[in-house]
Amino acid sequence: MGLRIAIDAMGGDHAPDVVLQGALEAARNHPDLTLLVVGPKGLLEERLTALGVTDLPFTLVDAPDVIGMDESPATAVKMKTRSSIHVGLGLHKQGHADAFVSAGNTGAVMAASLFILGRLPSVSRPSLPSFYPTVKGGSLLIDVGSNVDCKPEHLVQFARMGVCYAKKVWQRENPTVALLNIGEEPGKGNEQAKAAFTLLSQAQGLNFVGNCEGRDVLHHPADVIVTDGFTGNILLKFGESLPGAFKILFGQAAERLGMPREALAPVGALLKEVQRAFDYQNYGGMPLLGLSGTSLIGHGSSSARAIERLIVAGAEVAQAHLPEAISEGMATSA
Amino acid sequence: MGLRIAIDAMGGDHAPDVVLQGALEAARNHPDLTLLVVGPKGLLEERLTALGVTDLPFTLVDAPDVIGMDESPATAVKMKTRSSIHVGLGLHKQGHADAFVSAGNTGAVMAASLFILGRLPSVSRPSLPSFYPTVKGGSLLIDVGSNVDCKPEHLVQFARMGVCYAKKVWQRENPTVALLNIGEEPGKGNEQAKAAFTLLSQAQGLNFVGNCEGRDVLHHPADVIVTDGFTGNILLKFGESLPGAFKILFGQAAERLGMPREALAPVGALLKEVQRAFDYQNYGGMPLLGLSGTSLIGHGSSSARAIERLIVAGAEVAQAHLPEAISEGMATSA
Repeated sequence: MGLRIAIDAMGGDHAPDVVLQGALEAARNHPDLTLLVVGPKGLLEERLTALGVTDLPFTLVDAPDVIGMDESPATAVKMKTRSSIHVGLGLHKQGHADAFVSAGNTGAVMAASLFILGRLPSVSRPSLPSFYPTVKGGSLLIDVGSNVDCKPEHLVQFARMGVCYAKKVWQRENPTVALLNIGEEPGKGNEQAKAAFTLLSQAQGLNFVGNCEGRDVLHHPADVIVTDGFTGNILLKFGESLPGAFKILFGQAAERLGMPREALAPVGALLKEVQRAFDYQNYGGMPLLGLSGTSLIGHGSSSARAIERLIVAGAEVAQAHLPEAISEGMATSA
Repeated sequence: MGLRIAIDAMGGDHAPDVVLQGALEAARNHPDLTLLVVGPKGLLEERLTALGVTDLPFTLVDAPDVIGMDESPATAVKMKTRSSIHVGLGLHKQGHADAFVSAGNTGAVMAASLFILGRLPSVSRPSLPSFYPTVKGGSLLIDVGSNVDCKPEHLVQFARMGVCYAKKVWQRENPTVALLNIGEEPGKGNEQAKAAFTLLSQAQGLNFVGNCEGRDVLHHPADVIVTDGFTGNILLKFGESLPGAFKILFGQAAERLGMPREALAPVGALLKEVQRAFDYQNYGGMPLLGLSGTSLIGHGSSSARAIERLIVAGAEVAQAHLPEAISEGMATSA
């Protein structure tokens, strides 16, 4: 692909080691990518030596300031201009990288991305989506936490941006859109959902299929499922908890049934296979949609494998030219 | 127990046959209960004959009007005073029954219950809770759809009413309360959740343990999980969909892994056992909390077994004297 990806070496619960390992894997498996690993250079060199790396397959870019997981995102953005997030986003902004990726503090990365890359003129509120597993492969859930207090018109913009993602990155044709609500019929829901339903029904060029309920989500109600960032975040994190919770629930059930250990082997294999769909580690991360640029946010507890996936996702999204597609999608709509 | 339960024979997707079958089972298994089955008498007698019943173990109470699942609850309540919901609630109001139970249109039953039984003076908004399965047995999720637009102070009342239920019906000591939110720290959330957190923290006599996230729900964050009826309804229905969705996901996984049929038997048994916890049919129904009376609402697609459980739940809740407990709980609080 020949794309250049700037990577926040200090982002995530296990940074920088896990990020360096992920970047090493990405460099090995995707030699066509140019990787710019951003962080305090001395520290990164020290950790790479400790990891036994002698022949560096990527470039280190110095960023001596560190933003903690517990810092206020707003303060961090303003104060620490030599942080890995700032420097990495700057590389992208100045045209030295095609995308920026980070598994750091979501609030800090979102605030810095908005601050440094800027918002597309036609977008009121940039929005963070997520992949959501379904029995038919998966939907895009938008928003999952970047906008917790929304107006109905924001949900329409989320829908349009989500459609652009499903079209350009997932190559889905004429993606369908459903509104997450508490009933199927029009007129159901809280004030926000009722008004959003009306706006979505009237929106030009949107393949809106109506309301979907909580029970429909796993059955693939649409390519794009629209909701506000409060409900979306709760549903996202609930889904992420299913693998762990089901492991416990299956263990308890096996005990209640007095099931012999040897009968559990196929169950374990099957459970693992189902869990794969709910494991965020396989998806890497998602771009904040609506920016003049490409900034992907990964999970804070990303493993090296998840970081590798995040880097590859950064390349895939950069190739899709989402800012142009979103600007176009917003302009042609009513 | 010697309690008298009024049953809406016309409530539910499969009424009246399934309700009659459930009432027959309840009469057989709980001979101490007195059952008053309310509906169009001629129709009920006809259906009972068709079901081969000759010796009636309960009393039929005539209510000739029928409310459809698609009728506006508000209109139905005002217009059809001889409906099974109206007549059944009237029996309870007039002291001829200790509780009313229905698997009918939730909106209609709630509106009629509020209209006929009335609200406790100290309660602003009656609220419908639900059992939610967790790895430690289960929590009470409140509200699950009766109040979709809430003020922060409503959430505090939901918490207090939920605590009364957990104490009186589940016999839990000093029940804990968590607020469903998008982060653990105070200050997280949308405007409603932030304000509710402050009020819950200051509330006298409430065992508030703080915010819980979507990922915490199945891990039993508290005895009572408080949220508004929009998010609560979506989470409830999502949970209800897990058994069906997981059956499909496990089938797909078995196919992908090329797993032989004989290896799947223990998986099926285990999956069934886990699914039991998520099957609303095992819980019957829940009372609308905050009323001057006891009115339980079951699932629209209740089976005969679920109706039997609903009737038994009606007796259990009537015995707990919730209206008195809630009045007391509200009065002693700040």
